[in-house]
Parts: sequence; structure tokens; C-alpha cells
Amino acid sequence: MKTNALLSCAATAASLLLGGSSRAEEGMWLFNRPPVAAIQAKYGIELSPQWFEHVQRSCVRLQNGGSGSLVSPRGLLMTNQHVGSDAIEKLSTAQRDLLKDGFFARSLEEEIPCPDLEVNLLWSIEDVTPRVNAAVDAGASLAEQNAARRRVLAEIEKESEAKTGLKSQVVTLWQGGRYHLYRFERHTDVRLVMVPEKGIAFFGGDPDNFEFPRYCLDMCFFRIWKDGKPLENEHFLRWSRNGATDGELVLVAGHPGRTERLNTHAHLEFMRDVQYPMLMRSLWRREVQLATFSGRGEEQRRIAEGDYFGIQNSRKARTGILAGLQDPGLLAKKLAAEAELRQAVAANPDWQRQWGDGWEQVEAAKRVHAELLPRLTALGGTGLNLGGTLFSVAKDLVRLAEESAKADGERLAEYSDARRPSLELALFSPAPVYPELEIEKLAAGLQNMVELLGGKDPAVIAALAGKSPRARAEELVRGSGLADVAVRRRVAAGGRDAITSSADPLIQLVRALDADSRAVRKRFEEEVDAREKAAYAKIAAATFAKYGEDQYPDATFTLRLSYGPVQGWREGDRTVHPFTNFAGLYARAAERGNTYPFRVPERWEAAKPKLNPNTPFNFTAACDIIGGNSGSPGVNAAGEVVGLVFDGNIHSLPGNIVYDGALNRAVFVDSRAMLEALRVVYGMQSLADEIVGAGS
Amino acid sequence: MKTNALLSCAATAASLLLGGSSRAEEGMWLFNRPPVAAIQAKYGIELSPQWFEHVQRSCVRLQNGGSGSLVSPRGLLMTNQHVGSDAIEKLSTAQRDLLKDGFFARSLEEEIPCPDLEVNLLWSIEDVTPRVNAAVDAGASLAEQNAARRRVLAEIEKESEAKTGLKSQVVTLWQGGRYHLYRFERHTDVRLVMVPEKGIAFFGGDPDNFEFPRYCLDMCFFRIWKDGKPLENEHFLRWSRNGATDGELVLVAGHPGRTERLNTHAHLEFMRDVQYPMLMRSLWRREVQLATFSGRGEEQRRIAEGDYFGIQNSRKARTGILAGLQDPGLLAKKLAAEAELRQAVAANPDWQRQWGDGWEQVEAAKRVHAELLPRLTALGGTGLNLGGTLFSVAKDLVRLAEESAKADGERLAEYSDARRPSLELALFSPAPVYPELEIEKLAAGLQNMVELLGGKDPAVIAALAGKSPRARAEELVRGSGLADVAVRRRVAAGGRDAITSSADPLIQLVRALDADSRAVRKRFEEEVDAREKAAYAKIAAATFAKYGEDQYPDATFTLRLSYGPVQGWREGDRTVHPFTNFAGLYARAAERGNTYPFRVPERWEAAKPKLNPNTPFNFTAACDIIGGNSGSPGVNAAGEVVGLVFDGNIHSLPGNIVYDGALNRAVFVDSRAMLEALRVVYGMQSLADEIVGAGS
Repeated sequence: MKTNALLSCAATAASLLLGGSSRAEEGMWLFNRPPVAAIQAKYGIELSPQWFEHVQRSCVRLQNGGSGSLVSPRGLLMTNQHVGSDAIEKLSTAQRDLLKDGFFARSLEEEIPCPDLEVNLLWSIEDVTPRVNAAVDAGASLAEQNAARRRVLAEIEKESEAKTGLKSQVVTLWQGGRYHLYRFERHTDVRLVMVPEKGIAFFGGDPDNFEFPRYCLDMCFFRIWKDGKPLENEHFLRWSRNGATDGELVLVAGHPGRTERLNTHAHLEFMRDVQYPMLMRSLWRREVQLATFSGRGEEQRRIAEGDYFGIQNSRKARTGILAGLQDPGLLAKKLAAEAELRQAVAANPDWQRQWGDGWEQVEAAKRVHAELLPRLTALGGTGLNLGGTLFSVAKDLVRLAEESAKADGERLAEYSDARRPSLELALFSPAPVYPELEIEKLAAGLQNMVELLGGKDPAVIAALAGKSPRARAEELVRGSGLADVAVRRRVAAGGRDAITSSADPLIQLVRALDADSRAVRKRFEEEVDAREKAAYAKIAAATFAKYGEDQYPDATFTLRLSYGPVQGWREGDRTVHPFTNFAGLYARAAERGNTYPFRVPERWEAAKPKLNPNTPFNFTAACDIIGGNSGSPGVNAAGEVVGLVFDGNIHSLPGNIVYDGALNRAVFVDSRAMLEALRVVYGMQSLADEIVGAGS
Repeated sequence: MKTNALLSCAATAASLLLGGSSRAEEGMWLFNRPPVAAIQAKYGIELSPQWFEHVQRSCVRLQNGGSGSLVSPRGLLMTNQHVGSDAIEKLSTAQRDLLKDGFFARSLEEEIPCPDLEVNLLWSIEDVTPRVNAAVDAGASLAEQNAARRRVLAEIEKESEAKTGLKSQVVTLWQGGRYHLYRFERHTDVRLVMVPEKGIAFFGGDPDNFEFPRYCLDMCFFRIWKDGKPLENEHFLRWSRNGATDGELVLVAGHPGRTERLNTHAHLEFMRDVQYPMLMRSLWRREVQLATFSGRGEEQRRIAEGDYFGIQNSRKARTGILAGLQDPGLLAKKLAAEAELRQAVAANPDWQRQWGDGWEQVEAAKRVHAELLPRLTALGGTGLNLGGTLFSVAKDLVRLAEESAKADGERLAEYSDARRPSLELALFSPAPVYPELEIEKLAAGLQNMVELLGGKDPAVIAALAGKSPRARAEELVRGSGLADVAVRRRVAAGGRDAITSSADPLIQLVRALDADSRAVRKRFEEEVDAREKAAYAKIAAATFAKYGEDQYPDATFTLRLSYGPVQGWREGDRTVHPFTNFAGLYARAAERGNTYPFRVPERWEAAKPKLNPNTPFNFTAACDIIGGNSGSPGVNAAGEVVGLVFDGNIHSLPGNIVYDGALNRAVFVDSRAMLEALRVVYGMQSLADEIVGAGS
């Protein structure tokens, strides 16, 4: 594929600069199409089908947006602190701040169940493209194609669930070029085992995020329980006591969330000129508002911490992507690659007839998208998420009542029978709801509506009901009973009647906005999404025809394999070395006056004399990762854990649209640092034994 | 005037709630039309013409955007730390951070000259409306009217300067309803005498900004020098050792920067739906970017501190204004008030013929404004300020060369002969320039251009020259020689030839954007500004005809008088008392864990046993103020300083568009706290003596 071919050229140029030492490998490969031959050719290592099945079934997807892995035969789940923090925040109170102070279960009994954390283990993959395509008449209208596709996807998922009892999800690959059915083992009894203090998990804070050198113990451990006992799992990753060495091959198995490398040039222009400016505006607003909110006091800081981190992280990532989009040189290369493929298509009358209009169709779809975007954004996206948990609960109650009355294949996708259990887990979650923060978020959503649509828009007038956004948010949150899970269950059980007769102001607000939200979503799905899927299917077909099938699709928050050597990079005139160590942590803290976010936590000050200062702490490797990969295990050729992905360097950010092997690096916590911290800093000998014992 | 009449109703309703105790007075009154009768009627105090002349000539306008006053006969100038901080930052280095540590001159010799701080004392005011109107043919095109007005204004100013030797500026009042000529004594030898640590000047930081209770010593002292000696000034404000008491009348003389209370309803809708969303976006972006920049290290924090505070302050203020604009109830009241006046006009054929189209004309102007705003904003406003000092220097050099070749009245206004001295003070300022911060600001400006105009816009393509915004900013800043003032002088002396032959990349960039910037500015001036001025002149005339001449114009960063009693307010069920004291400072710090920004500075910890805990520290009064009033003296009826305005409460923010006497309060540092801090905390006996001796 030209995009890849082009990038290989870039990588080659880069490896010249690096004296030929670069072996960085682009690609987030499917587990049912792993790059066995390429790895064999380059590294002389042959990975067996059993290797892939073992690693696949040892990997975990956390439904709140991260990756993880099983590291003992008793359900022990390793991930990042920053992936687990969302769940851990829900276990905290003003009196017991588990994120700030850390948590350390000394026995199975002390492990704390998470109220609504769902994790999935990928069990099998099946290509269902022919069945999906057969159900969609390419000659029908986009609306009809969209409806037909929705029906067949719901049908496949429901059928699979009934047959296997496994959670089933059809994944759209190559933006519509292929459809694969993924089946998962789904677990919801997940308990917190250990999390270090945020001060060490996120040492350096926002200033050091996406930078290197780093000194973070960004790890935490949960345990999957089943039927009141720790899970007994056949597959889990063994631990490497020796870690990885400079230049050694590391393989990453995780769930990259989203890349857009296959987007057409027009699509990238849409991102640069329309989508990202609006997205950045929203991120800046939320970051400033959450910073302000957090400044009001310690408790406000605590309850907003997860949101605040998430926004800062997202802002920094998106800033990097936008910087790539705004680089005329980068887009020119993308255009040249696209031109090559289009010329090849134009030169073959059969190809031209089948696929020739793919690019124009994407462009046409993005024109409609640009038109719809302000309203779509103002109404909280296709999911009508205006702001806050309570609004979201109200929305799910209203839509669940409405959608449940329809046939499964006719519903909004998120209310299908197959997705019901996950939906209900969130909807009926006993996780705490903080009114002050709810007001803040809903007020921000209402303000955003006024700004995007103008004060004279009927939806705005309905939403505000004559009040200022803040006064209205206050009235809605204080007046709603939906913080009480029993109330939610009662409303849900009451169906449509319970909705139409509800006096809850949030339910009434959702009802006032629902039709408008559905209307813009319908246009988006039919005129943008369906058209784009059809168009990208053509482009994918053309790509396969010209460059062969040995391609990887853009990331889709499903399991992928990346690989590359432990390796630093050149930063201008400077060489960045791939390893840091414990000594560097203390040096960095001293350099920054040992003040937040560079303050070394007390336990680490106390443990300093006992720690081996030369223990490798964090390292970089040339593995192709992106957001969603956080928490992915890095394993050696033997399948042993050598590290835990927790970040990418600053050059990894434009990886959303283009991979640059010379500079793009994944950042890991070293397996040796994790083990030593458990033993020396936290005195968690039995947890360390469980991990290593499993590996011995 | 209806707006006022309406607001009196609101104030009356409010005073019922307050048990009739509210005597809050709306208005930012002109010194050549002071509200003598109203004050006499309400407070039984008759202020003489001499009183006003004395206060007027004791007041100081700091050209960087704040207010101040003379408080000794030797040029001693009192203002806020946050007003002086811009100048003080320029005196600081990585080794000597005057803002962080404070500064205390123990003798005249130790006072530090500021490189480019200009202060103005208002000497006289003259109404030149008839002359301006006579020069502008109301039947001519808007472009011709605009040119004629520009010519006559330049002519009046130049003539006045030649005649009096005083800096002369025609001020547009009532958005075009009146033109007054202000003459100023201009001083540029201003030296720093004393500034407290930022930790006490801005105790509570952004979280407490615009809030109350407050505990801030937001003061600093400069001295105006003339001919190598301290200024010998006849007029200065005496000091009140007793301060003010609850309910006592306080008068504020200062320079409110901008209010928009007389804007039409359509104009307010434009602000709400077009202008403010774009403005907030820019503020959020800059706040996040400066926060990120500051996080990189202590020196970055120091050099960005002033910008960062300015942006946070502005963001909080604008958030409050936007909240007002987004309140449908508030806008409905504005509309009702407008309807009353328009009906009165419509009912009188003569009025209707003269003024009847004023409102439609404003609306038409704002439609064009909305169309122009993205390009105007992308190109850094009418002044082409893309970002950073160096770009601004390059722009002034390019435009000065171009404009100087024209007749005075034909130039862009800021390059007229009358404004030349102030322009050159900034242009040739030896204040430090920090390349890293310059790159940050220019990169942000370039990014903003791409976002607003899209990557295919010719101006964007020219500005980026094929590079990403950051790479381009880096190349421009590193490649420019304009950090060197000698280079600036050489280019300026060389006129147009020096510009066209310059190889400086920033000068070349300005030249590439200049025509585009001038074109959009021309459209703005002719199609928006000139039309609006003509329209508002009609509305002002109608207002005077219906409601009489006893009105105040919107704020224009010129000297105004506000007045009202020392007074707290009701916040929901709670009464906010008007005074805080030193004891409260220590209590607040303890409540917030004595951590930044609530950490009590060392000198204040040390002085605690010696300070009288009951000394009043900050207080609120019902005086009508807005941004720009910072640093204004609050005086009693005897003209003695009882306080120093440094903030407004959160309810003062919508004061930009509407005054709410029940809630809007100015916040002062108490004169007693200032004196005690000088003596007890800082041991500045002689400075205290100079202030009080002057008052004894």
C-alpha cells in the first residue's frame, strides 16, 4: 500500500541518519493475520500459531478504554495506574483517596470489588465480510444500505451470542473494507489488588507526559474473580526477571484505540480545517474549566482528578496530531501516495469502474460532515452526551425505553440486545455521583450548545428554559432523583410509560432534545458514515489489488500486535537513550525542587537507601502504538513480560495519521522496576511471588 | 435612559431584598460632567469643582492598562502589583525574580527605572463634537465619512499638541455620540520603589480571583521622575489612617477599560453568538499553552508568568460576561428597554426621520463584522499582532515606514504623529525578549491562522512557507535580528528602503501578510466601525432626547468617577461581610494546607506575632468598576485614600453589559493594611512616612 510504501521510504531515510541501526516496524497487526513471515525474515524468530493464541487469550481489554494482561493463573490483571484510575476513583472518598495514597491488598479478602469495571478477553475471530456485504445492496440508497447493514450486524452478533454464550461484536476494519466478528469472555467481578501513589505512577505530571526520559511506576493490579473465587485461567503471561536489553525485539499486544492513517487526503483536510479546530476548542474549554474547578479545594481536586487527567492527556495527544495535520510537507506526501494509487486505478478500466469514485465519495461525505458538525457537537455527539453522569443516565433511560420497543436490528446500535449487559452495568452502577461536578459538566455542555448554535436556536431555547446555562444546570442536577440507582431501575422497568410520565427534569430535558439529536444522527449515519464506509471499501479493495493483502487496518480498539527493538532515537543533535533507572528519578526530582508534580512520594524517599539505583525504570522501544495501548504488555520472543506500555514519546502522537519509524517510540515500565518496587518499596512479597512464581 | 431606568428597577427590587439598605450607584461618570447633584441628594455631601480638579490631577493612567494615583508630593505613584507586574517582570532575571521575592528600595538611589513604562496624568478635557461632526458629511459614503473623521481627529490632536505641548487624544464617547479631547501630562521616567511578593499580592491565585473574602496586598509603588529628580507635583491624594467604615461613601477615580452597556440587543446577540465564542476559544488555547509552557521549568514559569496571569484574569472576566450574555432573562430585559426607546422614536416623526434607522444600522454592521471576524482574528486583529514581541516589532517597523510616507491624517491611526512617542517607547524598548517564549507565541498565532482560515488559504500558505507552525516559528524567531534594539533603530531610520531590502525573516513575513491585513481592516473600519459610529450617534441622540443628558457613556479607558458605600451583599441565603482582616489571611492559608497559591510568604509568617490581627485587610464597596479600574484609589469625601481597588467580585463581571447594584461590588486593599504592612512586614518606615507624612 502506498501509504506504507511511502513511510518505508521515510523510515529508510531515517535509518540512514541513525547509521542503519533503525529496525522500527510500522503496523498494528491483526491476530488472525499476524506478520509471522516479516518477523521471521527480520529477526530470525518464528512465532507459532500457539504463541499467538496464548498471547491473545492472556490479553485483556478494559472497557473504559485501555489494555491489560493476565500475569498469573489466578486472574491477576496488570495494567496502568492511569487506565485503572477511573475505576479506582470510584472506590475513593474524601476520607480515603486511593489514587493519592495508593492501595495495597495484603490478602484476597482485602481486594476491593469495582462497581462497574468490565473486562473482555478475546476468544476468537471470524471474518464475516461476505455475509455483511451480501446483505447490503450496493445499488440501494445510502439510507437503505445503512439500515440493512445495521440489521445484519445485529443479527450476526445476536446469533453468535446465542450460539456461544460469548460477548460478540462485529468490528469494521479498513474503514468498511472488512468485517470481522470478535467473541469475548466478559468479566465484571474485577477487584483492586494494588495501585501505587499517583505521585510515582504519574511522576512529572502533565509536563512530562509524552516526554522521555521518564520515571513512572504507571502500573496497577486488579484480579478477575468468577463465582466468588479468583479466576482460574489457563492462559497468562510469564514474567521476565531479566527484562529486555537494548536492541532486543519487544512485541506489544494491546488495543490501540484509533488511527486514521488510511484516511484520504480530503479526509485529512477535513480533520485539519474542521474537525480538529472544533475538538481542540472543546478540550481547551474543559481543561480550563476543570483546572478552575479543582482549584476550589482539595475535595474538588479529588473528584475532578480523573476527568482532568483525561482531558490533559487527550489535549496533548490531539495537539500532536493537529501539528502533523498542519505540516504542509506531511500532507503533500500523503497526497503523492494517494495520487499513485489513484493513477493505478484510473489506468485499469475495470478497477476504475468498481472503485474509481471512492475518493470523491469520501470528500462528498466530509462536506456533509462539516455541515453537520456544529449541531452534532452541540448535541453531545451521536450519543447525546451533553455532560455529566446524570444526564447520560437520563439519556440512556429515555432511549432504552424507546429502542427496546423496536426489533433488535432496527435500534440505535448501542441499545441492541448484544450490548445490553454492558449498557446496564454502567446505567445501574453504584459509583458515586458528585452534584457539584455534575453541575459543572452540564453547565459546560449547555454553554457549548449556546456557543455553537447561537442563543436563538430552538434546541438552545428548549434546553435553557429561560435560564443561564449555570442556573439551569444547577436546577436540573439538584432537581433530579437519578443519582439513586433504585430510581434508575424503577424508571427502566417502567418502559415508555415511566418516561412519558416522569417529572424528573433531566429526563424531561433529554426528551426535549431527543428528536433533534436523532435527526442529526440519522443524517450523519446515512449521509456521512454509510457513504464513507462504501467509499473506503472501494479504496481498500483498490489497495489490496495494487499492493497485496499484506496490510494492517487502522486501529479499532481491538487486539493488535506491534513489534520492534528496544531503541532510543535522535533528537536533533542529541541521542536519547532508551533506558532510565531509579537513580534518575531522584535526580529529576531534585532538579525540579522536589515540588509537585516532581515530588518523590514518602514511601520512595524512605526506600531510597534500599533500592538498587541502577534498576532500569522506564524504557523505549520502536513499537507502533497509540492511545488505547496503555496497559499493554511488552513481551519478548518467549512471550514473557519485559515491560508495560504506559505512554508514547512526543513523536508518537502524529502516529494517528502517519508512522515515523525514526522518531516514534513506545514508552514502557520495565519489568525489573515493577518487581523491585513491589518488594522493596511496598513490601508486597506475596504479590511479587504470585507474579514471578508464575514465571518460575 | 431606559437601560439605566431598567437597572434602577432591578436595584430597587434588590434593595427590597436587602431591607432597603442598598445605596449602590450605577455609573462611570465623566470628570467634566460629574454627578454632583446626585451625590449631594443622596449623601448630603457637596463636592466642589476644586475637589474634582484635585482628584483628576492626582490620578494616573498607566499605559499598559491600569490605573494609579499620586500619593506624595514627590511623584510617588500607587497602583496594584498586578498592574505594575508587566513592568516589574521586565526588570527581573532568572537570578533576580522581583515578582516572586518582592522589591524594596531603601533610598531614591535604589529605585529601578522601568524601560518602557509610560504614565499619563489627565490635565484637561474639551468637547470637540461639533468640530468632528462638521468635518464629516453625513450624506457621504461610509468610506468617505471614515476618512474624513480620521483626518479631523488627527488634525485636532496634532494641533493641540503643538499648542499645549501636552499629549492629546480625542476620545469617542457614547460609541460615537460625542467626541472629547483629552490632554495629558506624559511621563516615561518611572521607577520601581516597592512591590510585595506575589505570594501576598495575589494570595489565593486564580481560584480566589474575582471572589470574596480576599486577603491580598495587591499594591506596589513607583515614582515618577522628571529631569533626573523625583517629580514635584502640586496634586496628590492624602492618606486616611482610619480607613473607611461600613456604609461610608467611597469614591473611585480610575480608568475603566471597556463596558458595552449601551450596545443594542442585536449587538449583544453578536457578542453572544459570534464574538465571545471566538474570544473564549482564543483565551482557552492561550491559557492551556502557557500552563504547559510554564510546566517545563522554573525559568519558563518566570518568563511566562505575566502573560499567564493576564490570560487567566481575562478568561475569568470574559467567562462572567458571556454568562450574562447567555442568560435569556437578562437579554429579554435589554430588549424591553430598547423597545421602549424605539417606540418613543417611532412615535415622533422628526426623531424617526433623524434616528429611526440607528438600530438596523448597528445590526447591519454586526452582520458584516461576523463575516469578517475569522480573518480579522486569524490575522491578529486590526493591528496584525500574530504573536510575540518580535513579530510586533517587525510589524511596527514595516508599517511605520509605509505610514510615515503619508500625510498625518491619511495614516493608520496608531502611526499618527501624536502617537509616535508612545509607539517608539515600545518599539525601541530594551526590555528582555525570550526566544523560547517568542516561539511559543508565534507558533500559537500561526496554528490559530490555520485553524481559522484552513490550510488552503493563501495567507496561511504564505505564512507557513511549507513548514509546520512550530517549525516555522522556530525558524522565524531564531533567524531574526530584531531582539537587538540597535537593529530596530537602524531599520526604522532606513525607511521604506530598509524594509524592502531587509533579509530579516520576520520583516519578510509581515510584508507577506500586510496587504491582506490592511484589506480586512479597511473593510472593518468602513463597513463596521464607521457605520456603527454613525448609528450609535443616532441612538445616543435619541436617548438624550428622551431621557435627558444626565447620562454616563460606556467606559473608554479614560478617567471616570464611580461612587457607593462600603457594603457587602447577599449570596443566596448567606450575607457576605464587607471587611476581611489579617487574622483571616492566616486562617484561609491553614484551611488550604498552606500550599500554593494559598501559601503565606515567609516575611508574613515571620511578622505574624507583630501584626495586629484585627487590621482590616480587604473590603468591598458598591462602586461601579470594571477591568482597567485596577489600581484606582478609593477616596472618602475629604479626598483621602481609604483603599486601593484591585478586583471586583464575581457579580461585577457581567457589569460589562449590565450593572446589578444588589450584587456588583468593587474589592479594595484597605489603606490601614497597606500602611501596617509597609511598617511591620517590610520595615519600610520612610516610605510609610512619605505617604502618611503627606497626609498629616
